[in-house]
Amino acid sequence: MTERLLVIGGDAAGMSAASQARRLRPAEDLEIVALERGDWTSYSACGIPYYVGGLVDSIDDMIARSPSAFRDKQQIDVRMRTEAIAVDLDARRVTVRSLDSGVEEEIGFDELMIGTGAKPLRPDVPGLDARGVFGVATLDDAQRIRQAVLEGAPRRAVVLGGGYIGVEMAEMLLERGLEVTVVLADPLPMALLDEDMAELVCAAMGAMGIEVVTCAPVRAVETDTDGAARRVVTDEGSYAADLVVLGLGVRPYADLGRDAGLPVGDSGGLRVDDRQQCREGVWAAGDCTESRHRISGRHVAVALGTHANRQGRIAGTNIAGGDARFPGVLGTAITKVGDTEIGRTGLSAVEIEKAGLTAESTTVDSTTRAGYFPGAQKIVTKLWHERDGGRLLGAQIVGGPGSGKRIDVLAAALWNEMTVADIYGMDLSYAPPFSPTLDPVSITARKAAHL
Amino acid sequence: MTERLLVIGGDAAGMSAASQARRLRPAEDLEIVALERGDWTSYSACGIPYYVGGLVDSIDDMIARSPSAFRDKQQIDVRMRTEAIAVDLDARRVTVRSLDSGVEEEIGFDELMIGTGAKPLRPDVPGLDARGVFGVATLDDAQRIRQAVLEGAPRRAVVLGGGYIGVEMAEMLLERGLEVTVVLADPLPMALLDEDMAELVCAAMGAMGIEVVTCAPVRAVETDTDGAARRVVTDEGSYAADLVVLGLGVRPYADLGRDAGLPVGDSGGLRVDDRQQCREGVWAAGDCTESRHRISGRHVAVALGTHANRQGRIAGTNIAGGDARFPGVLGTAITKVGDTEIGRTGLSAVEIEKAGLTAESTTVDSTTRAGYFPGAQKIVTKLWHERDGGRLLGAQIVGGPGSGKRIDVLAAALWNEMTVADIYGMDLSYAPPFSPTLDPVSITARKAAHL
Repeated sequence: MTERLLVIGGDAAGMSAASQARRLRPAEDLEIVALERGDWTSYSACGIPYYVGGLVDSIDDMIARSPSAFRDKQQIDVRMRTEAIAVDLDARRVTVRSLDSGVEEEIGFDELMIGTGAKPLRPDVPGLDARGVFGVATLDDAQRIRQAVLEGAPRRAVVLGGGYIGVEMAEMLLERGLEVTVVLADPLPMALLDEDMAELVCAAMGAMGIEVVTCAPVRAVETDTDGAARRVVTDEGSYAADLVVLGLGVRPYADLGRDAGLPVGDSGGLRVDDRQQCREGVWAAGDCTESRHRISGRHVAVALGTHANRQGRIAGTNIAGGDARFPGVLGTAITKVGDTEIGRTGLSAVEIEKAGLTAESTTVDSTTRAGYFPGAQKIVTKLWHERDGGRLLGAQIVGGPGSGKRIDVLAAALWNEMTVADIYGMDLSYAPPFSPTLDPVSITARKAAHL
Repeated sequence: MTERLLVIGGDAAGMSAASQARRLRPAEDLEIVALERGDWTSYSACGIPYYVGGLVDSIDDMIARSPSAFRDKQQIDVRMRTEAIAVDLDARRVTVRSLDSGVEEEIGFDELMIGTGAKPLRPDVPGLDARGVFGVATLDDAQRIRQAVLEGAPRRAVVLGGGYIGVEMAEMLLERGLEVTVVLADPLPMALLDEDMAELVCAAMGAMGIEVVTCAPVRAVETDTDGAARRVVTDEGSYAADLVVLGLGVRPYADLGRDAGLPVGDSGGLRVDDRQQCREGVWAAGDCTESRHRISGRHVAVALGTHANRQGRIAGTNIAGGDARFPGVLGTAITKVGDTEIGRTGLSAVEIEKAGLTAESTTVDSTTRAGYFPGAQKIVTKLWHERDGGRLLGAQIVGGPGSGKRIDVLAAALWNEMTVADIYGMDLSYAPPFSPTLDPVSITARKAAHL
């Protein structure tokens, strides 16, 4: 008898699961219905700042696969602008509503896959509904901001938040010719970095011409008489703005699962096992879930397309009767602001303290290429390692072009529980256009290991 | 009583050993004498092509530390233009000759460190002594070639050999406005790559305007009546040249040690243990030695400044009474030709066959950045893995800017004996300016693991 897989959420996690299940089980064996309340499937939310900045021409470029492609090539019944509003796990059915017609119906399932994603954080202050205030979560947001930039001729932008999205949006709005102020409640941008490394990023932003206002919790967005944003008011001062971008980060959108009775962790994400299963026949993946951190052992919510893809695919394999397991995360991340590249993996100072580990750090300034080679830029590498034994706990890199992706070597080292002495021993590549005689990673590990 | 360390060879291996020994043992305890037959200490031979090409302005830029710095800051008695001509291990003394005065003398030692480096391969054909024919091994060579380029106004260059140095020299001579032909005895350049990957490099060279002539063993360099090179004659044809560069690779320069009775391996390099010791109180490091390959278990000669530095430092630590060990090599290497970056690590097809391993390969075309991001370039990643179990054996990467250094992630994976399935599991960094949602390394590992 044909079973039915019902997928809630048509982005990376949900559609990876659907595609993988389809690869392994033909339509005669498994019917797949996928619900998406928005207008897009399988898109790259990470590309939004670059679409706003004009580096990416078309929304279509950021869409990995369209609804019709899923329908035609994979026999997946994708229902757009259709929202799941309640899940009955015992009866194994979901109540759905068409956003266009308002019509509700119930759809039964044998297997349920939840990929409801993340929701952007919004400060609880007046004025956020004003014209000219934008979130940065969906392709609709992307289109609205780009339109506002191109047609509204705004002059001053305030970006609330200094995480990855905030920093990337600030750069892209600057690229568009706006005056840009980044307003933070924290003392520094890039809270996933240690203070000393975040200060390097903050300085780079300043040098580009981005104003960074720190320790300034936002209190209101003031509007014109016609309802357009004109000023962001904080504890520290107020800042003129005809464009306001909310880049405050995201939280797991786990509401639907939680309301159905599925377990939710301290991170706010749905709790899954390493097969991405919440309970028998109910699966979840991506930004709405939490993942095991391999170094701290804690469960954490990391919103990243990479994980969503992998986890969705694992869920799909398991839905099809396979046995795939997600091995956990390291919290590896990368971004850039201007020519300054930023990478991190593993635990930061704050996370190490929280985990109660006894660690020390080693920081080394080096160059991205041989010092004498044209284009050699400063790269700062910081390693956290256990005081006893020297096992690597985390790493951060800030530097010029060619710096960021070096974090992957340290992610590989962390993954394999290497000590800093072992890391120094590794045979990494060298040629003058690519590194000093010893790669910055090796130099820092050597210093950390006192070799 | 003060002991004496005698170091033969003033480049990376020898001077790293000397410096490290000095750090750990003061001058009252250890006298250090270092002999160098050339005019330079501790220089970057890898930088020579870029000095010739004008990307590096000054020879001084490529010198990590001058003889006077060693003398003044580290109390190391560096004797330049002084050649060791014989070693008597039983009597523990070395016969040395001043190249300027011709005077010979004997110097006794308690500890001996041999860092005699590599010697360039030269084909046994007539005409190599003609004016306009140059090796690429020393800074003297570098100066001579640069002078010939700048003052001789040559129009056509033939580079013999298509390894790292050959390819780099070809690019730099092209950069200088010469017509460049690379002449090879082999069917493809970059013999350290598999054929399919080397073909990508060959095509890139062709697209830049470098003529590549393959399967053409050189037979002679023909000269003008005034003794200047004018033509390179091969089995396949002859090629006009007023500048000829010998880029045929190097062999360990182990003659001095061999003549003294030290063991030499099949690779032609001095055999050392993992403490860089040849026999009690006699040490060697760098290009004149061989290293254990961690994947094949064989002893191989890899001429690379990185290893010379590390091994020299290890020898220095051990000379000072410590216990440092060299963990072996993977054969990791990197270079570029134009915008095409080339990285390799571990075993190639030929090496796998030689090692008698049963392996399969997986090759994936991907992009260096998200496909929609400006500047995304093609990157080809090839993995060799054991047929049973999937353990990684080797990797090769050829692609646009941002490709080459990705080889280090695979070097780290090899170092830790990871399988391709494990490699796919790793949490590598993702953001659109740096990679597709799955890094090319992850995508290739996934395909290799059939996941």
